[in-house]
Amino acid sequence: MSVTGTLYIVSAPSGAGKSSLIKALLEQTQGNALQVSVSHTTRDPRPGEVNGQHYHFVGKAEFQQMIAQDDFFEWAEVFGNFYGTSKKAIEASLAQGIDVFLDIDWQGARQVKQLMPASKGIFILPPSREALEQRLQNRGQDSDDVIAKRMAEAQSEMSHYNEYDFLIINDDFEQAVAEFGAIIQGQRLNTERQSALHHVSLAQLLA
Amino acid sequence: MSVTGTLYIVSAPSGAGKSSLIKALLEQTQGNALQVSVSHTTRDPRPGEVNGQHYHFVGKAEFQQMIAQDDFFEWAEVFGNFYGTSKKAIEASLAQGIDVFLDIDWQGARQVKQLMPASKGIFILPPSREALEQRLQNRGQDSDDVIAKRMAEAQSEMSHYNEYDFLIINDDFEQAVAEFGAIIQGQRLNTERQSALHHVSLAQLLA
Repeated sequence: MSVTGTLYIVSAPSGAGKSSLIKALLEQTQGNALQVSVSHTTRDPRPGEVNGQHYHFVGKAEFQQMIAQDDFFEWAEVFGNFYGTSKKAIEASLAQGIDVFLDIDWQGARQVKQLMPASKGIFILPPSREALEQRLQNRGQDSDDVIAKRMAEAQSEMSHYNEYDFLIINDDFEQAVAEFGAIIQGQRLNTERQSALHHVSLAQLLA
Repeated sequence: MSVTGTLYIVSAPSGAGKSSLIKALLEQTQGNALQVSVSHTTRDPRPGEVNGQHYHFVGKAEFQQMIAQDDFFEWAEVFGNFYGTSKKAIEASLAQGIDVFLDIDWQGARQVKQLMPASKGIFILPPSREALEQRLQNRGQDSDDVIAKRMAEAQSEMSHYNEYDFLIINDDFEQAVAEFGAIIQGQRLNTERQSALHHVSLAQLLA
C-alpha cells in the first residue's frame, strides 16, 4: 500500500499570474513531493529556455511517433507547433507519491480529466479585466495588437473556469499562494492517501 | 447566487481529542463563518453544561414529537437517552454561508451523508492504541472497567474511519489543528463557492 500523488490540472488565461504562483508554491514547499510536469514541444527554444526544464524539445517526426504510440495524455497543435503531455513521466511521479502540476489549457484539461478522473482542476483568474490588461501591458514584450489578441484569448479561456474543481482569484499575490497551498495541503489529507501514508500505525491501531 | 456553507461530519473515538481540536479551530477562525451544531438530547445536563450551548435539553415527549415531524437529520437512543441533530438550525446556518461541524458517530454520519451527499466527513484518530488508553486514563474520571469499555467502543468506532473523506491523525496537536484548518480552507476554494462569493467581479470579468 503506497502513497499515490495527485495530478493537478492548472489553467489560467495568459496574464493571470499562473507561472508566478506555481513558482512561489514550489519554492515554499521545496522537497515536499510537488513538481511541475514538463511538456514536449516541437517549437524552437526561446532565449533562456532549457531543454528538459522548460520543455522537452523534440522534432516533428519524434512527436508524431509519440502520438502514434499513444504516449500523450493530451496534445495540441498551436500555430503550427505541437505541444503534448507525456504519460510516462507523470505516472512515474504519481506512483512515487509526488503531486504533479499540469500547466495546460481548458481543452487539454478536458482530455486529461477524462483519462484521469481522480485529477483535480484548479483555475486561476485575475481580479478584473483591467488588472489582466494591465499585467499584459506591464510585460512590455507585446504590441497593442498582440495584447488585444491575448485579451480575446483570455476571455475564451476564462469562460471555462467552472469546469474546474477549485478557483483561485489572484488579486493579492501572497493570499493566492496561500490558497493554492491550502488546496494541496487539504487534498493530501484525504482518507485514501492518509491510509497509505500511515498504514503501519493504522494496522497496529485497528488490530 | 449566495454562498452556501459546507456541512462537516466529524467523528472520532472517545479520547482522540476531537473536542479539543474543534475548540482550537473555532478559536483560530473566530468570526470566520464556522460553527458547531448543537444537538438535542433528553438526558439531564451535567454540571457546567449550558442549555443551547452544549445541548438543547428537551423532554422525551418533545423529542418524540420532533421525530414524528421529521425534524432530525439523524437521531439515536444511547443508554435510554435520545440524541438528535435538528435540520432547521443547520440548514439556516449553511444558507448563510456558514460551515457547520456535526460532532456525531459513524452511524449518525451514514444517515447524514445519505441526506446530504455534499457533506464532507472528517475522521480523527489517535496515533496509537497506547496513546488512546493513556488519554482516557489521564482524564481521571473513569474506573478501569469504564476505560476498558471505552477502548472496546473506540475499536468499533475506529473501524469505520475509511467511510470518511478526510483523515487526521492527532499525534502532534498543533499539526492536527493546522491540518484540520487546511481541509476547511481548501474546501472553501471549490469553484461553486468561489463563484458565489465573487459573482459580481466574475460577471464583470467574463462579460
